[in-house]
Amino acid sequence: MLRGQILDGVYGGLAAARLLLPPENELAAELGVSRNAIREALELLRGEGLITRVQGAGTFVTGAKLSQRIDRLEGLAESLAGHQLPVENTVMSARESVASPFVAAKLQVPEGAPILFIERLRSVGGVPLSLDTTSLRIGAIPVDANLADQDVFSLIETELGMRLGWAEITVESVSADADTAKLLQIRPGAPLLLLHRLTHLEDGTPFDLETVRYRGDRCSLITTAARDSAPPPP
Amino acid sequence: MLRGQILDGVYGGLAAARLLLPPENELAAELGVSRNAIREALELLRGEGLITRVQGAGTFVTGAKLSQRIDRLEGLAESLAGHQLPVENTVMSARESVASPFVAAKLQVPEGAPILFIERLRSVGGVPLSLDTTSLRIGAIPVDANLADQDVFSLIETELGMRLGWAEITVESVSADADTAKLLQIRPGAPLLLLHRLTHLEDGTPFDLETVRYRGDRCSLITTAARDSAPPPP
Repeated sequence: MLRGQILDGVYGGLAAARLLLPPENELAAELGVSRNAIREALELLRGEGLITRVQGAGTFVTGAKLSQRIDRLEGLAESLAGHQLPVENTVMSARESVASPFVAAKLQVPEGAPILFIERLRSVGGVPLSLDTTSLRIGAIPVDANLADQDVFSLIETELGMRLGWAEITVESVSADADTAKLLQIRPGAPLLLLHRLTHLEDGTPFDLETVRYRGDRCSLITTAARDSAPPPP
Repeated sequence: MLRGQILDGVYGGLAAARLLLPPENELAAELGVSRNAIREALELLRGEGLITRVQGAGTFVTGAKLSQRIDRLEGLAESLAGHQLPVENTVMSARESVASPFVAAKLQVPEGAPILFIERLRSVGGVPLSLDTTSLRIGAIPVDANLADQDVFSLIETELGMRLGWAEITVESVSADADTAKLLQIRPGAPLLLLHRLTHLEDGTPFDLETVRYRGDRCSLITTAARDSAPPPP
Protein backbone atom coordinates (compact mmCIF):
# COMPACT_ATOMS: atom_id res chain seq x y z
CA MET A 1 0.00 0.00 0.00
CA LEU A 2 1.34 3.39 -1.03
CA ARG A 3 0.66 4.96 2.36
CA GLY A 4 2.85 2.29 3.97
CA GLN A 5 5.62 2.72 1.41
CA ILE A 6 5.79 6.45 2.03
CA LEU A 7 5.90 5.89 5.78
CA ASP A 8 8.56 3.19 5.46
CA GLY A 9 10.74 5.65 3.59
CA VAL A 10 10.17 8.16 6.34
CA TYR A 11 10.56 6.04 9.44
CA GLY A 12 13.14 3.67 7.98
CA GLY A 13 15.99 3.89 10.47
CA LEU A 14 16.39 3.73 14.21
CA ALA A 15 15.97 7.48 13.92
CA ALA A 16 13.72 9.07 11.34
CA ALA A 17 15.80 10.16 8.38
CA ARG A 18 13.35 12.43 6.64
CA LEU A 19 11.91 15.53 8.18
CA LEU A 20 10.69 17.02 4.91
CA LEU A 21 9.12 14.84 2.20
CA PRO A 22 10.33 15.28 -1.38
CA PRO A 23 7.96 17.06 -3.80
CA GLU A 24 5.03 14.99 -5.13
CA ASN A 25 6.62 14.43 -8.54
CA GLU A 26 9.88 13.14 -7.03
CA LEU A 27 7.98 10.89 -4.65
CA ALA A 28 5.93 9.56 -7.59
CA ALA A 29 9.09 8.80 -9.57
CA GLU A 30 10.80 7.20 -6.54
CA LEU A 31 7.87 4.87 -5.86
CA GLY A 32 6.96 4.31 -9.53
CA VAL A 33 3.34 5.48 -9.25
CA SER A 34 1.29 8.36 -10.63
CA ARG A 35 1.30 11.80 -9.09
CA ASN A 36 -2.43 11.43 -8.45
CA ALA A 37 -1.84 8.28 -6.42
CA ILE A 38 0.80 10.11 -4.38
CA ARG A 39 -1.57 13.01 -3.80
CA GLU A 40 -4.28 10.66 -2.49
CA ALA A 41 -1.83 8.83 -0.22
CA LEU A 42 -0.52 12.12 1.20
CA GLU A 43 -4.08 13.31 1.80
CA LEU A 44 -4.73 10.10 3.74
CA LEU A 45 -1.55 10.59 5.81
CA ARG A 46 -2.50 14.20 6.48
CA GLY A 47 -5.92 13.07 7.68
CA GLU A 48 -4.19 10.65 10.07
CA GLY A 49 -2.08 13.50 11.44
CA LEU A 50 1.14 11.85 10.27
CA ILE A 51 2.21 14.66 7.96
CA THR A 52 1.71 18.43 7.92
CA ARG A 53 1.74 20.54 4.78
CA VAL A 54 3.22 24.01 5.26
CA GLN A 55 2.43 26.59 2.57
CA GLY A 56 5.58 27.45 0.62
CA ALA A 57 7.79 25.14 2.71
CA GLY A 58 6.71 21.60 1.86
CA THR A 59 5.37 18.49 3.55
CA PHE A 60 6.72 17.70 7.01
CA VAL A 61 6.58 14.42 8.83
CA THR A 62 4.82 15.07 12.13
CA GLY A 63 7.04 14.18 15.03
CA ALA A 64 9.84 12.96 12.78
CA LYS A 65 13.25 14.19 13.77
CA LEU A 66 16.17 15.18 11.66
CA SER A 67 19.24 13.19 12.69
CA GLN A 68 22.69 14.68 12.82
CA ARG A 69 25.70 12.39 13.20
CA ILE A 70 27.99 13.57 15.99
CA ASP A 71 30.74 10.97 15.53
CA ARG A 72 31.93 12.79 12.41
CA LEU A 73 33.17 16.33 12.78
CA GLU A 74 30.79 17.94 10.33
CA GLY A 75 28.88 21.19 10.03
CA LEU A 76 25.09 21.09 9.78
CA ALA A 77 24.96 21.70 6.01
CA GLU A 78 27.54 18.95 5.42
CA SER A 79 25.77 16.45 7.63
CA LEU A 80 22.44 17.13 5.91
CA ALA A 81 23.90 16.96 2.41
CA GLY A 82 22.69 13.36 2.05
CA HIS A 83 19.12 14.44 2.77
CA GLN A 84 19.21 17.16 0.08
CA LEU A 85 17.90 19.61 2.64
CA PRO A 86 19.24 23.13 2.20
CA VAL A 87 20.18 24.82 5.48
CA GLU A 88 19.13 28.47 5.83
CA ASN A 89 21.22 30.58 8.22
CA THR A 90 19.95 33.80 9.77
CA VAL A 91 23.00 35.66 11.09
CA MET A 92 21.90 37.23 14.39
CA SER A 93 25.37 38.43 15.28
CA ALA A 94 28.92 38.28 13.85
CA ARG A 95 31.30 40.54 15.69
CA GLU A 96 34.62 40.89 17.43
CA SER A 97 34.22 40.28 21.15
CA VAL A 98 36.28 39.37 24.20
CA ALA A 99 36.66 35.95 25.83
CA SER A 100 34.54 35.40 28.95
CA PRO A 101 36.13 33.29 31.71
CA PHE A 102 34.36 30.16 30.37
CA VAL A 103 35.33 30.79 26.73
CA ALA A 104 38.89 31.78 27.73
CA ALA A 105 39.36 28.53 29.67
CA LYS A 106 38.08 26.43 26.77
CA LEU A 107 39.99 28.22 23.99
CA GLN A 108 43.10 28.54 26.20
CA VAL A 109 43.40 32.30 25.77
CA PRO A 110 43.62 35.00 28.49
CA GLU A 111 40.31 36.35 29.80
CA GLY A 112 39.36 39.37 27.72
CA ALA A 113 41.40 38.22 24.70
CA PRO A 114 39.83 39.09 21.32
CA ILE A 115 37.58 36.45 19.81
CA LEU A 116 35.12 36.31 16.94
CA PHE A 117 31.54 35.73 18.13
CA ILE A 118 28.89 34.40 15.72
CA GLU A 119 25.24 33.69 16.50
CA ARG A 120 23.03 32.09 13.86
CA LEU A 121 19.53 30.69 13.66
CA ARG A 122 19.52 27.61 11.43
CA SER A 123 16.42 26.44 9.59
CA VAL A 124 15.39 23.88 7.00
CA GLY A 125 12.35 24.50 4.81
CA GLY A 126 11.42 27.51 6.91
CA VAL A 127 11.35 25.50 10.15
CA PRO A 128 13.93 26.62 12.74
CA LEU A 129 16.11 23.70 13.91
CA SER A 130 18.76 25.25 16.12
CA LEU A 131 20.29 28.37 17.57
CA ASP A 132 24.10 28.22 17.35
CA THR A 133 26.68 30.44 18.98
CA THR A 134 30.33 30.13 17.99
CA SER A 135 33.41 31.64 19.62
CA LEU A 136 36.47 31.51 17.37
CA ARG A 137 40.04 32.10 18.49
CA ILE A 138 40.61 34.91 15.97
CA GLY A 139 40.10 38.63 16.37
CA ALA A 140 38.48 39.55 13.08
CA ILE A 141 35.96 38.25 10.54
CA PRO A 142 37.61 36.97 7.37
CA VAL A 143 36.70 39.37 4.55
CA ASP A 144 35.41 36.58 2.31
CA ALA A 145 33.23 34.99 5.00
CA ASN A 146 29.67 34.30 3.94
CA LEU A 147 28.01 33.26 7.17
CA ALA A 148 24.56 33.04 5.60
CA ASP A 149 25.63 30.28 3.23
CA GLN A 150 28.37 28.26 4.81
CA ASP A 151 29.22 26.15 7.84
CA VAL A 152 31.78 27.63 10.24
CA PHE A 153 33.95 24.55 9.62
CA SER A 154 34.02 25.38 5.93
CA LEU A 155 34.94 28.98 6.78
CA ILE A 156 37.84 27.77 8.96
CA GLU A 157 39.13 25.43 6.29
CA THR A 158 38.48 27.51 3.18
CA GLU A 159 38.80 31.16 4.20
CA LEU A 160 41.32 30.71 7.02
CA GLY A 161 43.17 27.79 5.43
CA MET A 162 43.38 25.87 8.70
CA ARG A 163 43.05 22.12 9.23
CA LEU A 164 40.51 20.79 11.71
CA GLY A 165 41.52 17.94 13.98
CA TRP A 166 39.01 16.66 16.52
CA ALA A 167 36.38 17.81 18.99
CA GLU A 168 35.08 17.11 22.50
CA ILE A 169 31.28 17.07 22.61
CA THR A 170 28.90 17.32 25.55
CA VAL A 171 25.15 16.74 25.14
CA GLU A 172 22.49 17.80 27.64
CA SER A 173 18.72 18.12 27.77
CA VAL A 174 17.44 21.50 28.98
CA SER A 175 14.25 23.56 28.92
CA ALA A 176 14.07 26.45 26.45
CA ASP A 177 14.33 29.93 27.99
CA ALA A 178 11.92 32.58 26.68
CA ASP A 179 14.31 34.22 24.19
CA THR A 180 15.49 30.94 22.66
CA ALA A 181 11.90 29.66 22.49
CA LYS A 182 10.80 32.74 20.57
CA LEU A 183 13.59 32.38 18.00
CA LEU A 184 13.05 28.63 17.61
CA GLN A 185 9.24 29.07 17.47
CA ILE A 186 8.51 26.70 20.36
CA ARG A 187 6.91 27.25 23.76
CA PRO A 188 9.15 28.39 26.64
CA GLY A 189 10.12 25.32 28.68
CA ALA A 190 10.05 22.98 25.66
CA PRO A 191 12.89 20.40 25.67
CA LEU A 192 16.10 21.30 23.83
CA LEU A 193 19.20 19.28 23.05
CA LEU A 194 22.08 21.45 24.25
CA LEU A 195 25.38 20.58 22.60
CA HIS A 196 28.79 22.01 23.44
CA ARG A 197 31.46 21.23 20.87
CA LEU A 198 35.08 22.32 21.38
CA THR A 199 36.92 21.80 18.11
CA HIS A 200 40.71 21.64 17.97
CA LEU A 201 42.90 22.28 14.94
CA GLU A 202 45.09 19.45 13.68
CA ASP A 203 48.00 20.86 15.72
CA GLY A 204 45.93 20.59 18.93
CA THR A 205 44.98 24.29 19.34
CA PRO A 206 41.42 24.64 20.73
CA PHE A 207 39.97 26.96 18.10
CA ASP A 208 36.17 26.82 17.88
CA LEU A 209 33.74 26.60 20.81
CA GLU A 210 30.13 26.09 19.75
CA THR A 211 26.95 26.02 21.80
CA VAL A 212 24.05 24.58 19.83
CA ARG A 213 20.45 24.58 21.05
CA TYR A 214 18.50 22.07 18.95
CA ARG A 215 14.70 21.91 19.01
CA GLY A 216 13.97 18.66 20.84
CA ASP A 217 10.87 18.02 18.75
CA ARG A 218 12.75 18.27 15.45
CA CYS A 219 16.29 17.01 16.03
CA SER A 220 18.11 13.93 17.24
CA LEU A 221 21.81 13.08 17.37
CA ILE A 222 23.26 9.76 16.30
CA THR A 223 26.57 8.08 16.93
CA THR A 224 28.18 4.65 17.26
CA ALA A 225 30.30 3.02 19.93
CA ALA A 226 32.52 -0.06 19.95
CA ARG A 227 33.08 -2.40 22.91
CA ASP A 228 36.79 -2.76 22.29
CA SER A 229 38.95 -0.52 20.20
CA ALA A 230 37.63 -2.15 17.02
CA PRO A 231 35.82 0.43 14.88
CA PRO A 232 32.15 -0.26 14.06
CA PRO A 233 31.37 -1.42 10.53
CA PRO A 234 30.43 1.36 8.07
CA MET B 1 40.80 29.53 49.05
CA LEU B 2 39.35 26.20 50.13
CA ARG B 3 35.92 27.00 48.72
CA GLY B 4 37.53 27.57 45.30
CA GLN B 5 39.57 24.37 45.51
CA ILE B 6 36.48 22.30 46.21
CA LEU B 7 34.61 23.94 43.33
CA ASP B 8 37.58 23.48 40.96
CA GLY B 9 37.53 19.78 41.72
CA VAL B 10 33.83 19.74 41.01
CA TYR B 11 33.60 21.88 37.89
CA GLY B 12 36.95 20.85 36.41
CA GLY B 13 36.01 19.65 32.93
CA LEU B 14 33.89 20.84 30.03
CA ALA B 15 31.22 18.86 31.85
CA ALA B 16 31.06 18.62 35.59
CA ALA B 17 32.68 15.38 36.70
CA ARG B 18 31.42 15.15 40.25
CA LEU B 19 27.79 14.88 41.21
CA LEU B 20 28.37 13.68 44.74
CA LEU B 21 31.19 15.07 46.89
CA PRO B 22 33.39 12.61 48.78
CA PRO B 23 32.89 12.40 52.57
CA GLU B 24 34.40 15.24 54.63
CA ASN B 25 37.36 13.16 55.85
CA GLU B 26 38.30 12.12 52.29
CA LEU B 27 37.97 15.68 51.05
CA ALA B 28 40.16 16.88 53.94
CA ALA B 29 42.84 14.31 53.08
CA GLU B 30 42.63 15.12 49.36
CA LEU B 31 43.10 18.84 49.91
CA GLY B 32 45.52 18.50 52.85
CA VAL B 33 43.47 20.52 55.34
CA SER B 34 41.60 19.81 58.57
CA ARG B 35 38.12 18.36 58.68
CA ASN B 36 36.94 21.51 60.46
CA ALA B 37 38.20 23.66 57.58
CA ILE B 38 36.33 21.43 55.11
CA ARG B 39 33.17 21.67 57.19
CA GLU B 40 33.35 25.47 57.18
CA ALA B 41 33.98 25.61 53.43
CA LEU B 42 31.04 23.25 52.75
CA GLU B 43 28.80 25.37 54.97
CA LEU B 44 29.79 28.43 52.93
CA LEU B 45 29.04 26.60 49.66
CA ARG B 46 25.71 25.42 51.04
CA GLY B 47 24.85 29.00 51.96
CA GLU B 48 25.62 30.04 48.39
CA GLY B 49 23.29 27.33 47.07
CA LEU B 50 26.13 25.56 45.27
CA ILE B 51 25.79 22.30 47.17
CA THR B 52 22.93 20.44 48.81
CA ARG B 53 23.30 18.01 51.71
CA VAL B 54 20.90 15.09 51.63
CA GLN B 55 20.44 13.17 54.89
CA GLY B 56 21.88 9.67 54.55
CA ALA B 57 22.93 10.20 50.92
CA GLY B 58 25.74 12.73 50.95
CA THR B 59 26.62 16.15 49.56
CA PHE B 60 25.44 16.92 46.05
CA VAL B 61 26.67 19.62 43.73
CA THR B 62 23.66 21.71 42.76
CA GLY B 63 23.21 21.77 39.03
CA ALA B 64 26.28 19.62 38.41
CA LYS B 65 25.75 16.81 35.96
CA LEU B 66 27.17 13.34 35.90
CA SER B 67 28.81 12.69 32.52
CA GLN B 68 28.61 9.36 30.78
CA ARG B 69 30.85 8.68 27.78
CA ILE B 70 28.86 7.34 24.84
CA ASP B 71 31.78 6.72 22.48
CA ARG B 72 32.77 3.67 24.51
CA LEU B 73 30.33 0.80 24.74
CA GLU B 74 30.06 0.69 28.52
CA GLY B 75 27.36 0.06 31.08
CA LEU B 76 26.56 2.76 33.63
CA ALA B 77 28.45 1.14 36.51
CA GLU B 78 31.52 0.67 34.29
CA SER B 79 31.45 4.23 33.01
CA LEU B 80 31.13 5.60 36.55
CA ALA B 81 33.85 3.38 37.97
CA GLY B 82 36.37 6.24 37.69
CA HIS B 83 34.16 8.43 39.86
CA GLN B 84 33.89 5.80 42.62
CA LEU B 85 30.13 6.23 42.56
CA PRO B 86 28.23 3.03 43.29
CA VAL B 87 25.20 2.53 41.04
CA GLU B 88 22.05 1.27 42.77
CA ASN B 89 19.60 -0.61 40.56
CA THR B 90 15.94 -1.04 41.45
CA VAL B 91 14.61 -3.86 39.28
CA MET B 92 11.07 -2.82 38.28
CA SER B 93 10.60 -5.71 35.90
CA ALA B 94 12.61 -8.70 34.59
CA ARG B 95 10.45 -11.11 32.62
CA GLU B 96 9.99 -13.08 29.46
CA SER B 97 7.98 -11.07 26.95
CA VAL B 98 7.29 -10.91 23.21
CA ALA B 99 8.81 -8.59 20.64
CA SER B 100 6.66 -5.60 19.65
CA PRO B 101 6.89 -4.53 15.97
CA PHE B 102 9.50 -1.88 16.90
CA VAL B 103 11.61 -4.25 19.00
CA ALA B 104 11.25 -7.06 16.42
CA ALA B 105 12.51 -4.79 13.62
CA LYS B 106 15.51 -3.67 15.66
CA LEU B 107 16.49 -7.12 17.00
CA GLN B 108 15.72 -8.76 13.63
CA VAL B 109 13.34 -11.35 15.08
CA PRO B 110 9.73 -12.10 14.05
CA GLU B 111 7.01 -10.04 15.75
CA GLY B 112 5.90 -11.87 18.86
CA ALA B 113 9.21 -13.76 19.21
CA PRO B 114 10.27 -14.36 22.83
CA ILE B 115 12.53 -11.72 24.36
CA LEU B 116 13.76 -10.90 27.84
CA PHE B 117 12.45 -7.55 29.08
CA ILE B 118 14.20 -5.73 31.93
CA GLU B 119 13.23 -2.38 33.47
CA ARG B 120 15.44 -0.78 36.10
CA LEU B 121 15.61 2.50 37.95
CA ARG B 122 19.23 3.52 38.39
CA SER B 123 20.38 5.78 41.19
CA VAL B 124 23.58 7.10 42.70
CA GLY B 125 23.68 8.12 46.34
CA GLY B 126 19.92 7.77 46.57
CA VAL B 127 19.29 10.20 43.68
CA PRO B 128 17.59 8.61 40.65
CA LEU B 129 19.57 9.18 37.44
CA SER B 130 17.79 7.15 34.80
CA LEU B 131 15.03 4.73 33.95
CA ASP B 132 16.33 1.99 31.63
CA THR B 133 14.40 -0.61 29.67
CA THR B 134 16.27 -3.40 27.93
CA SER B 135 14.98 -5.96 25.40
CA LEU B 136 17.34 -8.89 24.96
CA ARG B 137 17.19 -11.42 22.13
CA ILE B 138 16.90 -14.38 24.52
CA GLY B 139 13.81 -16.08 25.90
CA ALA B 140 14.79 -16.63 29.53
CA ILE B 141 16.65 -14.96 32.38
CA PRO B 142 20.06 -16.54 33.03
CA VAL B 143 19.87 -18.30 36.41
CA ASP B 144 22.95 -16.53 37.75
CA ALA B 145 21.78 -13.07 36.71
CA ASN B 146 21.97 -10.46 39.46
CA LEU B 147 20.20 -7.50 37.93
CA ALA B 148 20.39 -5.44 41.12
CA ASP B 149 24.19 -5.43 41.09
CA GLN B 150 25.42 -5.65 37.53
CA ASP B 151 25.26 -3.91 34.16
CA VAL B 152 23.38 -5.78 31.42
CA PHE B 153 26.59 -5.74 29.37
CA SER B 154 28.34 -7.61 32.16
CA LEU B 155 25.45 -10.10 32.27
CA ILE B 156 25.75 -10.70 28.50
CA GLU B 157 29.50 -11.20 28.68
CA THR B 158 29.78 -13.07 31.97
CA GLU B 159 26.56 -15.10 32.38
CA LEU B 160 25.81 -15.63 28.68
CA GLY B 161 29.45 -15.82 27.54
CA MET B 162 28.83 -13.66 24.48
CA ARG B 163 31.12 -11.02 23.01
CA LEU B 164 29.80 -7.51 22.44
CA GLY B 165 30.71 -5.73 19.22
CA TRP B 166 29.32 -2.27 18.60
CA ALA B 167 26.21 -0.15 18.99
CA GLU B 168 24.14 2.46 17.18
CA ILE B 169 23.05 5.28 19.49
CA THR B 170 20.35 7.91 19.07
CA VAL B 171 19.99 10.80 21.52
CA GLU B 172 16.90 13.00 21.86
CA SER B 173 15.55 15.59 24.28
CA VAL B 174 11.98 14.97 25.47
CA SER B 175 9.65 16.03 28.28
CA ALA B 176 9.07 13.58 31.13
CA ASP B 177 5.66 11.89 31.16
CA ALA B 178 3.90 11.61 34.54
CA ASP B 179 4.95 7.99 35.30
CA THR B 180 8.60 8.54 34.44
CA ALA B 181 8.65 11.84 36.36
CA LYS B 182 7.35 10.12 39.48
CA LEU B 183 9.99 7.37 39.34
CA LEU B 184 12.81 9.83 38.61
CA GLN B 185 11.53 12.28 41.28
CA ILE B 186 11.23 15.23 38.91
CA ARG B 187 8.26 17.31 37.78
CA PRO B 188 6.22 16.06 34.80
CA GLY B 189 7.40 17.89 31.69
CA ALA B 190 10.98 18.24 32.96
CA PRO B 191 13.63 17.71 30.24
CA LEU B 192 15.02 14.19 29.79
CA LEU B 193 17.84 12.85 27.64
CA LEU B 194 16.30 9.92 25.76
CA LEU B 195 18.89 7.46 24.49
CA HIS B 196 18.25 4.44 22.27
CA ARG B 197 21.19 2.06 22.05
CA LEU B 198 21.06 -1.01 19.79
CA THR B 199 24.03 -3.21 20.68
CA HIS B 200 25.28 -5.90 18.31
CA LEU B 201 27.32 -8.94 19.23
CA GLU B 202 30.78 -9.30 17.70
CA ASP B 203 29.27 -11.52 14.97
CA GLY B 204 26.86 -8.72 13.97
CA THR B 205 23.67 -10.06 15.62
CA PRO B 206 21.55 -7.21 17.04
CA PHE B 207 21.12 -8.46 20.60
CA ASP B 208 20.33 -5.72 23.12
CA LEU B 209 17.95 -2.78 22.57
CA GLU B 210 18.01 -0.24 25.40
CA THR B 211 15.90 2.83 25.99
CA VAL B 212 17.39 5.06 28.66
CA ARG B 213 15.61 8.12 30.10
CA TYR B 214 18.22 10.23 31.89
CA ARG B 215 17.24 13.10 34.20
CA GLY B 216 18.23 16.21 32.23
CA ASP B 217 19.19 18.08 35.40
CA ARG B 218 21.59 15.38 36.57
CA CYS B 219 23.13 13.77 33.48
CA SER B 220 25.08 14.71 30.39
CA LEU B 221 26.63 12.59 27.64
CA ILE B 222 30.11 13.13 26.27
CA THR B 223 31.84 11.94 23.12
CA THR B 224 34.56 12.92 20.66
CA ALA B 225 34.63 13.31 16.88
CA ALA B 226 37.44 13.54 14.37
CA ARG B 227 37.43 15.57 11.14
CA ASP B 228 39.11 12.88 9.07
CA SER B 229 39.43 9.24 9.94
CA ALA B 230 42.25 10.04 12.35
CA PRO B 231 41.26 9.04 15.88
CA PRO B 232 41.25 11.79 18.53
CA PRO B 233 44.11 11.78 21.03
CA PRO B 234 43.40 9.90 24.30
